[in-house]
Amino acid sequence: MAVAAGRTGRPTLAVVGATGAAGTVMLQILSHRADIWGEIRLIASPRSTGRKLAVRGEEVEVLALAEEVFDGVDVALFDVPDEIAERWAPIAAAKGAVVVDNSGAFRMDPEVPLVVPEVNPHALRVRPRGIVANPSCTTLCMIVALGALHAEYGLRELVASSYQAVSGAGRAGVDTLRRQISLVAGTELGTHPGDVRRAVGDDTGPFPEPVALNVVPWAGEARADGWSSEEMTVRDETRKVLGRPTLPVAVTCVRVPVVTAHSLTLHARFESEVTVAKAREILATAPGVVLFDDPGAGEFPTPADVVGTDPTWVGRVRRALDDPTALDFFVCGDNLRKGSALNTVQIAELVVGAKA
Amino acid sequence: MAVAAGRTGRPTLAVVGATGAAGTVMLQILSHRADIWGEIRLIASPRSTGRKLAVRGEEVEVLALAEEVFDGVDVALFDVPDEIAERWAPIAAAKGAVVVDNSGAFRMDPEVPLVVPEVNPHALRVRPRGIVANPSCTTLCMIVALGALHAEYGLRELVASSYQAVSGAGRAGVDTLRRQISLVAGTELGTHPGDVRRAVGDDTGPFPEPVALNVVPWAGEARADGWSSEEMTVRDETRKVLGRPTLPVAVTCVRVPVVTAHSLTLHARFESEVTVAKAREILATAPGVVLFDDPGAGEFPTPADVVGTDPTWVGRVRRALDDPTALDFFVCGDNLRKGSALNTVQIAELVVGAKA
Repeated sequence: MAVAAGRTGRPTLAVVGATGAAGTVMLQILSHRADIWGEIRLIASPRSTGRKLAVRGEEVEVLALAEEVFDGVDVALFDVPDEIAERWAPIAAAKGAVVVDNSGAFRMDPEVPLVVPEVNPHALRVRPRGIVANPSCTTLCMIVALGALHAEYGLRELVASSYQAVSGAGRAGVDTLRRQISLVAGTELGTHPGDVRRAVGDDTGPFPEPVALNVVPWAGEARADGWSSEEMTVRDETRKVLGRPTLPVAVTCVRVPVVTAHSLTLHARFESEVTVAKAREILATAPGVVLFDDPGAGEFPTPADVVGTDPTWVGRVRRALDDPTALDFFVCGDNLRKGSALNTVQIAELVVGAKA
Repeated sequence: MAVAAGRTGRPTLAVVGATGAAGTVMLQILSHRADIWGEIRLIASPRSTGRKLAVRGEEVEVLALAEEVFDGVDVALFDVPDEIAERWAPIAAAKGAVVVDNSGAFRMDPEVPLVVPEVNPHALRVRPRGIVANPSCTTLCMIVALGALHAEYGLRELVASSYQAVSGAGRAGVDTLRRQISLVAGTELGTHPGDVRRAVGDDTGPFPEPVALNVVPWAGEARADGWSSEEMTVRDETRKVLGRPTLPVAVTCVRVPVVTAHSLTLHARFESEVTVAKAREILATAPGVVLFDDPGAGEFPTPADVVGTDPTWVGRVRRALDDPTALDFFVCGDNLRKGSALNTVQIAELVVGAKA
C-alpha cells in the first residue's frame, strides 16, 4: 500500500493475526499511540484476505499470510496460534523482520528474550533468532508492579492467586459467560448443590465448569504433580522476566465471572526489610503502574474500573504482620491491553528505538 | 411447650435469633441430624413473637428474648448481632445454659473457647464464662482441612486468599448480587472502564463496589496498616483454633459474584517435609473433609457444586515446587452451613456429649 507522505522513511510494521481478538485491540492501540510507523501491513489467514480494517483512521486491506508479505517489514507482531507462530515467525525473521510473538511457542526458548519494557528492556538486545516473546496475560497483569518492587528490594519468594477474567479464554469465554449470566438472571440459582450446573447444562464453553455464579480453580492443561499449565507458565515467565531462574513461585490460577481484567493477590517476600511507605513510593512513581490504595476511603482497584485502561493498578499494599521482609498486595490489569496487545506494541516501539 | 414423650429427659436447646438467616439454616440442620434434643425453644426479637417456625417437622412458636426464656435451657445457640450477644449471652449463661455464640463478640476473649469440633474439641472443656464461640465463616470454610494437615505436619506459616460469596454479607448481599446480575444480563457490559458501575449506580448494597462481573478485594472494616477486619479475624481465629498464637498468617479477603460457598487458595508451610500422597491420605480420611482432586478428569470443587453440603471440600492438592515443606491447595465450603449454623449445632451436640 501507499504510505502517507509524512511517514516516508519510517519503519514498516506488520500485524499477523490482525482480525483476531488481540489483533483487533492491537489496531486500536496503534491508532492511539504516537504515530511512529510508516506502513502498517495487516496480515491474516487466507479466509480474511481482502477484508478492510481501520487503523490510524485509514482503511487497510488484509493480506493473506505468505512469505512475500514480509518483504520490507521491520517489525512483525504475531498474534496467532502456537503452531502458526512456530512455522511463520522464523520465516518472517529470515526475511529480516524482528518478530514480536504473542503465542506460547517461544516464551521459554533460551534464545528468545521474554520482554516487558518497564521491567527488562535490556533483554531485547540479545535476540539471536530475531524473535522476541510477549509474556502471557496473567504474568503481564502483575509483573510491572512486581518488577518495580523487585528492582528495589530483590524478590526472594512469591505466592500468587489469580482471579482471571473469561476473555483470557478468548471470545468463546466471553460468549459463554454472557450466555450463562442470562440463564441465571432473575432466578434463585446458586443456593442448592448443582443447580447452576443443571441450568447451564453441558454448555460450559472453554471452561471445565460453569463460570457464572461460580469460580473455577483451573486454567489450561494438566501438568506434572497436579499443577496446571497456566500456573507453570506464570512461574516460568516470572523467573525469566525478573532474571531469577530459581525464584520460588507458587501460583494458583482461578477463573472468575469477570469479562475482562485479571486480578491477583500477591504475597511477595524480599531480600531485605520493606516498609509500606517506601513500597508505596516505588509503586506511585513506577512507569506503567497506578497506585490506588486507600481502602478506608473505598480506594482499591477492581476489574470493573480498570478494564479498558493501560496500567497495572495496585491496591491493598500492606506489610506482612509476621514478616518484615514481605508485602501483601492486590493487582489488577486489563488482560487484553497490557496483558496482551499493548505489551506487544510497546516491545515493537522499543525495537525501533521509540520511547516505550 | 410440651415435649414429645420419647424426648422426656433429654436436654433443652434454645435457638436465639431463630428467624434470621443463620437461624433458619440452624432449624433445617436440627431437623435433619440425630434427634438428641428434648425441647427446642425458639427465641427472637419481640417483633417476631408468636410466629411459628418448623423444626423437626413440628410448628414451634417463637418467644421474645427475655431472662425467663432461658429457664431450664441446657444449651443456647445465639445467632444475633454482636451487641445483643454481648448483653444476653452472659444472662443465659448465668441461668445455667451453655451459650454457643455465632457473633464476633467473644471469639477472641481468652476466657471463651473458639471451637471447631473436628479440630479442637478439647478446647470446649474450659469455658469459665459458660460461653463457647463459633468461628467466622471464612475461617470455618478452610480450618477443618487445614487442621487435619496441621495435626500431622505442624503448620509453620499460612498464606491464604479468599473467594467469598455474597451471602457472607447476609440476605442484603444476596439480593444485591441478584439485582446487579439482572442489570448486566443480556448486555455487553464489562468491557469499558466503569460501565458496570454506571449500570449498577449507587446500588452496591453492603459492598463498596459492584460485585456482578467484578471481584472486590475488601471485606469488613479498615484496621491498622491497611488490613481489613475480615483478614485480621481469619488470622486471629486460625491461630486460636490451632493453638498456635504466633503462627505467621497472611490473608487477603476478596468478594466474588457467588451466592453461597466460600473458596480459598492456601499455601501452607509445615514443620517437616510433606508428600502429596500422605497429604491426600490425611484429607481423604479426615472427618468433615471430602477430597475431590483429579483435575485431569475435571475433578476439583467449585462453589456451584458444594453449596448446600456439609463438608469442607478440597482439591488441587500439590506440593510447592520449590519447598518440600509446603502444600498448595484449594478449599471450598458452604459458608451458611459448616461456615456458620452447622458448626454451632455440632458444638452444641458436643456440649451435651452427643457424637458430633
